[in-house]
Amino acid sequence: MKFLRFFVNDFLGDDNDIMNCSFNSSNIKSGYFDGEKIVSLTDPLEIVLNNWQHERYLEDQIVNSYSLEDVIFAPPTNPSKIICIGLNYKDHAQELGMELPDEPKIFLKPPSSVVAHLDDIIYPRMSSEVDYEAELAIIISKTGKNISFDDVDDHIGGYTILNDVTARDIQRKDEQWTRAKSFDTFAPIGPYIETEMDPMDQNISLSINKEVKQESNTKNMIFSPKDLVEFISSIMTLNTGDIIATGTPSGVGQMNKGDIAEVTIEGIGTLINKII
Amino acid sequence: MKFLRFFVNDFLGDDNDIMNCSFNSSNIKSGYFDGEKIVSLTDPLEIVLNNWQHERYLEDQIVNSYSLEDVIFAPPTNPSKIICIGLNYKDHAQELGMELPDEPKIFLKPPSSVVAHLDDIIYPRMSSEVDYEAELAIIISKTGKNISFDDVDDHIGGYTILNDVTARDIQRKDEQWTRAKSFDTFAPIGPYIETEMDPMDQNISLSINKEVKQESNTKNMIFSPKDLVEFISSIMTLNTGDIIATGTPSGVGQMNKGDIAEVTIEGIGTLINKII
Repeated sequence: MKFLRFFVNDFLGDDNDIMNCSFNSSNIKSGYFDGEKIVSLTDPLEIVLNNWQHERYLEDQIVNSYSLEDVIFAPPTNPSKIICIGLNYKDHAQELGMELPDEPKIFLKPPSSVVAHLDDIIYPRMSSEVDYEAELAIIISKTGKNISFDDVDDHIGGYTILNDVTARDIQRKDEQWTRAKSFDTFAPIGPYIETEMDPMDQNISLSINKEVKQESNTKNMIFSPKDLVEFISSIMTLNTGDIIATGTPSGVGQMNKGDIAEVTIEGIGTLINKII
Repeated sequence: MKFLRFFVNDFLGDDNDIMNCSFNSSNIKSGYFDGEKIVSLTDPLEIVLNNWQHERYLEDQIVNSYSLEDVIFAPPTNPSKIICIGLNYKDHAQELGMELPDEPKIFLKPPSSVVAHLDDIIYPRMSSEVDYEAELAIIISKTGKNISFDDVDDHIGGYTILNDVTARDIQRKDEQWTRAKSFDTFAPIGPYIETEMDPMDQNISLSINKEVKQESNTKNMIFSPKDLVEFISSIMTLNTGDIIATGTPSGVGQMNKGDIAEVTIEGIGTLINKII
């Protein structure tokens, strides 16, 4: 199933301030894409993700349906934190001539960096080298600490796409990556949370203005989503809605103002954002 | 004024699971310490911080009062993010023989690391070298982006104390500081948010089992709270309740299980936590 959060165009009226509507909005709806239209549901998405497999649950939840043109995508989750993994693809490590890490390398992006599918990525004045990084993202659906490898599946609600936008010049300058990774709009996520897929065998690619720049498969990941949830939850409590971005394959590079970045992961869809 | 969030002992009954009560609890109360007792207020603390100076506002808010023995301290805020500053004290930079930075060095701690005054700091199995770092913390009371230096005061609700607990062995091992700084319980904050103080001239000290280990004054900070809010908000939106930890003075060192860490900042009070 492809679940999402969205606004209905009508509700916004003349209000163009989508950025402010994206969070804490009472207008935000949860639903799923049935291949043709968006079906809205009663419960918030975090509850839907834990119950959609129960018999008759979804049927009883249905409120309405909308054509794709009538909805505005919202970030599929409102995370309390975003944990990212550095250097988690074998091809990327080889490209850099680096040894494979023996433990996941983690860093954080702030929730304020999140935007949705089709939202703009704002090129910050502080940087003159802004890069894309295509990533598979895990959505946590059940809070946990010290989650054992065998229990991980109970805590993963599904998978989405994240573009780990990075001001590379600032990353090189600063010892810590935080500033380079934390600008507002630097974490586009979406469009959907896919609940039924093998995260370890999906093609992942990124194109800029339709030209392919990154192309790999999630089977090249060094640490699997299950490894990552076990490892990270041994450090910090993972909350419902939290995001783990699983690292980027080889081929990272720059984006310029006016570019359209498209990240495609087989089984999920395509996350599209314009750089302005 | 010394504002705080707290639980009343009676409400907890037999429930010893304070950790889980600390967040999203409907039992959490806001109030202030009048020098003798805790006075509870109707509004949530984020609203109180923006209105307490209005005439008759506080009088009209008063619900009840409690003796200090009858309350359990909660973290004074539930931040969407915690932004920390590395190397912001002249004495600490000199001690390390390092040049003074020309820009603030920022990193993040996750909200899941927050605990309250008198909560325990849990020594993680992954580390064998856990350090204290006494810090003055800014509490954001009004959401803002690109806040100009002259407008900063409108966005700072007050100041509290944060112990930036750090697994030093992991910090040395990892390129990024995230793991070392992100364990659950590694961000004790409190006890109070002081709304009326000069943040640039307060003594700051830390003791372990009553032995003084860090002793400085906030006038030794390289970047002032106003500088920091202006700089950080040029990168990311600062939300109501967010915390900026302003860096630690010289004298950092280890804590052991059973130790009592006390951080005192003149004008605010003393943040006390036991390591277990």
